[in-house]
Amino acid sequence: MSILVVGSVAFDTLKTPYGERQKILGGAATYFSLSASYFADVRVVAVVGTDFTAENEAVMKNRGIDTRGIQHAKGKTFHWSGEYGENVNEAKTLSTELNVFEKFEPYIPTEYDDTDFLFLANIDPVLQTRVRDAMQNVRLVGGDTMNYWISGQPENLDKMLKRVDILLINDGEAKMLAGDNSLPRAAHKVLERGPRALVVKHGEYGATIFFRDGEFAGGRHPFRAPALPLDEVRDPTGAGDSFAGGFMGYIASQGEVNRRVLKRAMFYGSVMGSFSVERFGTERLQSLTREEIDERFKVFRELTHLD
Amino acid sequence: MSILVVGSVAFDTLKTPYGERQKILGGAATYFSLSASYFADVRVVAVVGTDFTAENEAVMKNRGIDTRGIQHAKGKTFHWSGEYGENVNEAKTLSTELNVFEKFEPYIPTEYDDTDFLFLANIDPVLQTRVRDAMQNVRLVGGDTMNYWISGQPENLDKMLKRVDILLINDGEAKMLAGDNSLPRAAHKVLERGPRALVVKHGEYGATIFFRDGEFAGGRHPFRAPALPLDEVRDPTGAGDSFAGGFMGYIASQGEVNRRVLKRAMFYGSVMGSFSVERFGTERLQSLTREEIDERFKVFRELTHLD
Repeated sequence: MSILVVGSVAFDTLKTPYGERQKILGGAATYFSLSASYFADVRVVAVVGTDFTAENEAVMKNRGIDTRGIQHAKGKTFHWSGEYGENVNEAKTLSTELNVFEKFEPYIPTEYDDTDFLFLANIDPVLQTRVRDAMQNVRLVGGDTMNYWISGQPENLDKMLKRVDILLINDGEAKMLAGDNSLPRAAHKVLERGPRALVVKHGEYGATIFFRDGEFAGGRHPFRAPALPLDEVRDPTGAGDSFAGGFMGYIASQGEVNRRVLKRAMFYGSVMGSFSVERFGTERLQSLTREEIDERFKVFRELTHLD
Repeated sequence: MSILVVGSVAFDTLKTPYGERQKILGGAATYFSLSASYFADVRVVAVVGTDFTAENEAVMKNRGIDTRGIQHAKGKTFHWSGEYGENVNEAKTLSTELNVFEKFEPYIPTEYDDTDFLFLANIDPVLQTRVRDAMQNVRLVGGDTMNYWISGQPENLDKMLKRVDILLINDGEAKMLAGDNSLPRAAHKVLERGPRALVVKHGEYGATIFFRDGEFAGGRHPFRAPALPLDEVRDPTGAGDSFAGGFMGYIASQGEVNRRVLKRAMFYGSVMGSFSVERFGTERLQSLTREEIDERFKVFRELTHLD
């Protein structure tokens, strides 16, 4: 099965307690596509500048990712700069240079028309809705958003929420979106606004999927996947997008989308997130094997299962 | 099997977003013993003042708890007053009147000499060590502590750590105790100082048990239990002590202490914590049935298990 991700490809300059890196390959679509590439055929729609090299693009191509949807525009590639302190759950943004990403107009190549699954990474909800409208035949749509759109574009976001099947956000975003400080209550308020399921990512504590009653052949009971207690989180950048890539990628690898598949997708999402943070940037996601992934899946099972 | 808890019995005056209560029955030993009473024979060593009524004591006696170890001293009972805001994970202490608890000298009645399991609730580590020394024949010792002792009495706490088998604390306490902001690293530093296992409570995200390699017939792999996503947390007071009561109580109900038992104990701890916060004070813990407990255990299993 094929999956299309629309989102940012970027360069990241970052500092963590373990070191620093200048202008390394990053961006939500990059982390997502590398992560999903271990499960499904991945296609990318994004925009990069003239400073984006063939070597950069080869990182994706080497994983079999279809990069024909990456537009090359005049100007510089999106550049994010940030720092992580002792608490790796919180990034301090030092600068955000949108560059060519500021005028990003997603264009879907006709070769992508037969795509089965769609993931709308964190971009302007107007663009997310437009892409979704252009991809009427996909079987399932996942989406992400952030505080900036929640507070700045509530009406456009509301339209987008009605068009995604599964929304993936973090605790703070879920509470902000619902205007409710109780996470389970916030989750169900978000579900009333459109998505059939909501994945809330808790950082080092894992993630929970909440369901609208009756959707995906089941009731209201949520499901929780742990995160792996890792001694050393070298670089948390992209952990959420790697989670989304594993989650959506695993779904795309399966014949149908039901509770059984979604529970396993939560585990595979956590597995990919745990690999991502072990090294800087996308390094770890470039060189995995499916055996390593399934081995870690077993570790997650041992971490949570009674028998 | 029998289990003895040594700790505080108190009155709590508290306010949460759901209401307020004046001088209701509380204290670590109270929550612990009520919670553990669904699994084992519970004995309590504590001190109360002249304002502690027969009706107060009947709350414990009605659950079959042996209260012969409760000393009645001249003066008032320990009185804690606090408030919870929108974030139920953080209590704001308004006042702490130690009263008779300030001069608490745990005295173990001879009738308690045959006790099988011991839990040292959060009191002065010097007293914890003294009680532990007086109970040489117990099969397993659990213990709690808090930031106040971690920063104020590091040497006495170190002695106590060498005498407990399983320490139960929260994330902040574990990181402070180890002087390390990475939880898994902090956990293993704590384990090097004495305990064979460490339970770290994450509030609404559940709890993780870390093991010293080889202890309890297993390796270094941790195990994580979730917390139940509850729409309404009416009163978080005592959640950690209720967890400890379910955890230690379940262990005491089993023939031996191995990984299988400890994993289930983590779930039963979470189950009892989830009941405790549903109503104010100890109300919910007074009126449970074992059927309700096992029913919720199943919900926890569904929340985490793939099949």
